[in-house]
Amino acid sequence: MKIIVAKTAGFCFGVKRAIDIAFKIAKEKRKGIFTLGPIIHNPQVVEKLKEKGIIPIENIKIREKISALIIRTHGIPLSLSQEIAARGCEIIDATCPFVKKAQYYAKLLSEKGYQVVILGEKNHPEVISLMSYADNNAIVVDGNRPLPKLMNKVGIVVQTTQPLESLKKILAEAAEHTKELKVYNTICNSTALRLKETGKMAGSVDVMFVVGGKNSANTTQLTKLCSSFSVPTFHIETAAEIKEDWVKGTQSIGITAGASTPKWIIKEVEKRITDIGGERFSGT
Amino acid sequence: MKIIVAKTAGFCFGVKRAIDIAFKIAKEKRKGIFTLGPIIHNPQVVEKLKEKGIIPIENIKIREKISALIIRTHGIPLSLSQEIAARGCEIIDATCPFVKKAQYYAKLLSEKGYQVVILGEKNHPEVISLMSYADNNAIVVDGNRPLPKLMNKVGIVVQTTQPLESLKKILAEAAEHTKELKVYNTICNSTALRLKETGKMAGSVDVMFVVGGKNSANTTQLTKLCSSFSVPTFHIETAAEIKEDWVKGTQSIGITAGASTPKWIIKEVEKRITDIGGERFSGT
Repeated sequence: MKIIVAKTAGFCFGVKRAIDIAFKIAKEKRKGIFTLGPIIHNPQVVEKLKEKGIIPIENIKIREKISALIIRTHGIPLSLSQEIAARGCEIIDATCPFVKKAQYYAKLLSEKGYQVVILGEKNHPEVISLMSYADNNAIVVDGNRPLPKLMNKVGIVVQTTQPLESLKKILAEAAEHTKELKVYNTICNSTALRLKETGKMAGSVDVMFVVGGKNSANTTQLTKLCSSFSVPTFHIETAAEIKEDWVKGTQSIGITAGASTPKWIIKEVEKRITDIGGERFSGT
Repeated sequence: MKIIVAKTAGFCFGVKRAIDIAFKIAKEKRKGIFTLGPIIHNPQVVEKLKEKGIIPIENIKIREKISALIIRTHGIPLSLSQEIAARGCEIIDATCPFVKKAQYYAKLLSEKGYQVVILGEKNHPEVISLMSYADNNAIVVDGNRPLPKLMNKVGIVVQTTQPLESLKKILAEAAEHTKELKVYNTICNSTALRLKETGKMAGSVDVMFVVGGKNSANTTQLTKLCSSFSVPTFHIETAAEIKEDWVKGTQSIGITAGASTPKWIIKEVEKRITDIGGERFSGT
């Protein structure tokens, strides 16, 4: 049995940066440091940070005194930044720089009079933040439903983890609706590369393992992509979930992981499969 | 036998305007009035103007004195406008206002630092004029070949008579190449509507007649569209070309015409088919 681990599996630049910021802060052992929501969509990493005293909170109205708030990779709405600042809390901004760019473009398009269209998942924190930068007056589309009627001057900005295929679909549609179109392709490269490598892998192995938080949008997207190749695909958070039946009798196994999955979890998955009877193969 | 004439057949707004300008000037009976190239891509109209003393010339270096030059719908390169002005010739500008708009956007994109991409036919006068407004530094693409490697900031402008399908194709492709994309969909509405009506007609009749100059890009495009429906299609310039065999034994005949085809030529075609054995049907 051959095991192939995707080179692009795991932490992207923005996630690595956010985690580094959080663990660095943890070392200072200050009191009252919180993250607003889980710092990344990975329960295991969130747990490790909790052990070091950095606790995720859902909103800023808690009893304890907040000394500093770490803003996670997805970013937060503009009004919330202002509210936090007004409360005198320190903001430690770990928003992914690529998300920051998308926020900037959403604001720019809105200010320049474009009807802003955000390609992304309506309820994803990144999209909610982008929406706020577009003066809470944007249309969110997901590439699955037809576009609504648009104005004559449309600006498109994209959730950084969207697949390029969705953008291509939306652009072709938008051409029918509008006379002036400005598009900022804010899909981050690492997302594009990870989807590409995963797709290639899914087309050539017997089983795919996608490792990452069940609440991680980009991990879920990888799972969806693999399933579209009709290869048995398992979305797992940890090695402990793997059943021997899934692996036994297969010739080749692919492992990929979302942007918020730490290397050590991927290593454990690989080890567990090797223990069942696999053999490591040097990347794709 | 049933004959259906497309409602959108014949002169568009820009062509009608140019013809009106030319015939109005003809009434003044001034000497030395020329059109630079045929005023529209229709030999019959050009012939009528010639009879009234307005002669098409290929370039401004002729022996006779040019008192005034009528600029045709397609527009001319910026440098040529300057050259004509420098010679002291009067310019009577019959450039289609929609082409003017496309020229303006080509210039704007170029000035704002975009790599300008023109979707259109490389050798078409409109495209040559658009090219000049983009500082003669644009890439012309036709939707049939893959896009070349593009820069990170791309601006697209479209020959007014291009089909929307080509723009949709180019946009989807451009999304792969570039991070910032600005698109001016300068396809004129009448082109879009004419293609739409013609396509619908071609799918429901036994024979299609496309009436217009053999040198007319938009007429040729209508012919191409009809042929894609596997309906026998005849691109003719005048009624005299119609052979009885083409019509005999058919149940339904569709007639469409390019933007540069005068109503009287369409009427003659209709009459000729009726004479062979058709019966007028009230539009689509």
